[in-house]
Amino acid sequence: MRRYHTLPKDDGFYMPAEFEPHEGCILIWPERADSWQYGGYAARKAFTEVICAIAKSEKVTVCASARQYDNVRSLLPEYVRVVEMSSNDSWARDYAPTFLRNRQGEIRGVDWYFNAWGGLVDGLYFPWDLDNKMATKLCDLLEKDIYDAQDFVLEGGSIHSDGEGTILVTEACLLSAGRNPQLSKEEITQKLLEYLGAEKVIWLPRGVYHDETNEHVDNICAFTAPGEVVLGWTEDPNDPQYPLSESCYQVLSRETDAKGRPFTIHKMPMPTPIHITQEECEGLDWMDGQPTRTPGERLAGSYVNFYIANGAVVMPGFDDPMDQPAKELLQRLFPTREVIQIYARDILIGGGNIHCITQQIPLGR
Amino acid sequence: MRRYHTLPKDDGFYMPAEFEPHEGCILIWPERADSWQYGGYAARKAFTEVICAIAKSEKVTVCASARQYDNVRSLLPEYVRVVEMSSNDSWARDYAPTFLRNRQGEIRGVDWYFNAWGGLVDGLYFPWDLDNKMATKLCDLLEKDIYDAQDFVLEGGSIHSDGEGTILVTEACLLSAGRNPQLSKEEITQKLLEYLGAEKVIWLPRGVYHDETNEHVDNICAFTAPGEVVLGWTEDPNDPQYPLSESCYQVLSRETDAKGRPFTIHKMPMPTPIHITQEECEGLDWMDGQPTRTPGERLAGSYVNFYIANGAVVMPGFDDPMDQPAKELLQRLFPTREVIQIYARDILIGGGNIHCITQQIPLGR
Repeated sequence: MRRYHTLPKDDGFYMPAEFEPHEGCILIWPERADSWQYGGYAARKAFTEVICAIAKSEKVTVCASARQYDNVRSLLPEYVRVVEMSSNDSWARDYAPTFLRNRQGEIRGVDWYFNAWGGLVDGLYFPWDLDNKMATKLCDLLEKDIYDAQDFVLEGGSIHSDGEGTILVTEACLLSAGRNPQLSKEEITQKLLEYLGAEKVIWLPRGVYHDETNEHVDNICAFTAPGEVVLGWTEDPNDPQYPLSESCYQVLSRETDAKGRPFTIHKMPMPTPIHITQEECEGLDWMDGQPTRTPGERLAGSYVNFYIANGAVVMPGFDDPMDQPAKELLQRLFPTREVIQIYARDILIGGGNIHCITQQIPLGR
Repeated sequence: MRRYHTLPKDDGFYMPAEFEPHEGCILIWPERADSWQYGGYAARKAFTEVICAIAKSEKVTVCASARQYDNVRSLLPEYVRVVEMSSNDSWARDYAPTFLRNRQGEIRGVDWYFNAWGGLVDGLYFPWDLDNKMATKLCDLLEKDIYDAQDFVLEGGSIHSDGEGTILVTEACLLSAGRNPQLSKEEITQKLLEYLGAEKVIWLPRGVYHDETNEHVDNICAFTAPGEVVLGWTEDPNDPQYPLSESCYQVLSRETDAKGRPFTIHKMPMPTPIHITQEECEGLDWMDGQPTRTPGERLAGSYVNFYIANGAVVMPGFDDPMDQPAKELLQRLFPTREVIQIYARDILIGGGNIHCITQQIPLGR
């Protein structure tokens, strides 16, 4: 594994869209007792369903701690690869490398600095050293070279690429005080363009209400094709989500992508607001002398947090009346893929969803 | 990774000779404080020299603990792959899989049961659970299928294959009380033939004097070509090694290999007897309330403990008058390969040598 200190864009590398062909997918086994309630058994079940749904159409590598290796190797089917790798938690989207490709099909990773969604300002746990090492470990394991971007704080869940020069982010996240406060919006734009080999960054103002990642874009808006997005949407003006979605809609409806195309915006219903229960909270370890979550706290549930596999779209379900319309919308937008809906409340309790726990490796060499 | 419970021989798999082409080599970073003196810094240096010598002609993967990963990734050159993997010590020969190949070039591993060279009878440390998991972890990582032989105790260093049906072992090791005492010599022969896809097992009586592995074959005798071996040898009849080498010579000079060929036996000089010093012993942690080694204890030094890489033979040196003649013999026997001699006292103190810390992956798919 070579470590590059050059700029990917200068070297002809760019971030493909998630809907382009994959070599495979990376996930991390859930174990952290202050993230996954009651020892993580329900989360494991949900993760396993996600893993198996993805493994139907692409290779899946699951990272497991030394402690959990035996158990994971026994629980998962033989066609899933399990590798030993230590981490602080299980958000492959945010700390596995962002993979780039060049026109010759070579794949390289980007190693952003990960600081647990805000570092000492408003990060969600401490320390985050093992997470921050994962991009390097994974590139070495996969025999891909890597770009060093350790001077820039970023998580994979805070960016989306259309593979044709357009990057989607949220201001709420990328301009937050716990990320790169020393950089201006223009400088951050520049970094993104250089490291993702892109032409244009679309800044959505906000994400999902009460999303503790400072409102990652991958929970509110996603490309489904070049020039087409789904946007998390509520029709209830009294829902605090309403102005957030509305602000994104305003930007998207006025903007064009890097190729000059206006966006086709598909409004994706949001599930009925989801709140964590007392019983669920009691199944979470405390952290730094504090309960991890408070009973009644709203969780940032969204159907937009789906993963596009080679042959499937794997999306969350919440046992909610909106599950079916959301699924139908995605099935219409991805007519060649099977839409697989997985009950994901037990992932949501950890703070994210299916897109957050996955990271695709684009097809290449 | 599929796990097979069939017999490799029935499936057409056999163990290639080490001098056949390799895809690569596996090593494990030294860390155990009761094996590697003074925090292992001297051992690391020797391991690094071995790694770099091998990496000149084949891919090298080094397994490092989570604790040491950063350091190892920083110390080793970029072209060496470093993966996180936990282990109890650093003997890849003995707990990495024994790799087999079939006539179509498919590679599979064998997962023997590892019990630290004798388990509760005369094993060298406890526990050995992480070592015993490594074969599975490595096959999964390398995307090779694996044969389950967990009902049979064996270390890779206790077998040699000529790739043409002949297996070399020692009675001292394979018939020891800490291995498979419930099996007769005939039953063990049968197991070896079935799992290594071989036709004939040659049982040498003994190995190197005071070799704590119960005298692994890889320290006393090795194939250099089909029908040709080097045998560790001393001309001093007062050396306790003398009768041991002599007993092996007697067997080899009367035996034929699986193809019916008599053996050409090259007598390889042994280094002048090597004894551990007081200072070296003081640099080793104690284990179970006992010092690990005793000052003046003889170490099982041998030039036979070399590794055959694609383009090199990497052999130990001991700053001994015999270093040069031993090197010249190997250079004569491997005229197309560069013989690289590495000062290896700091590996020997751990209880083995260069062959013991390596495991080849045959070329294939």
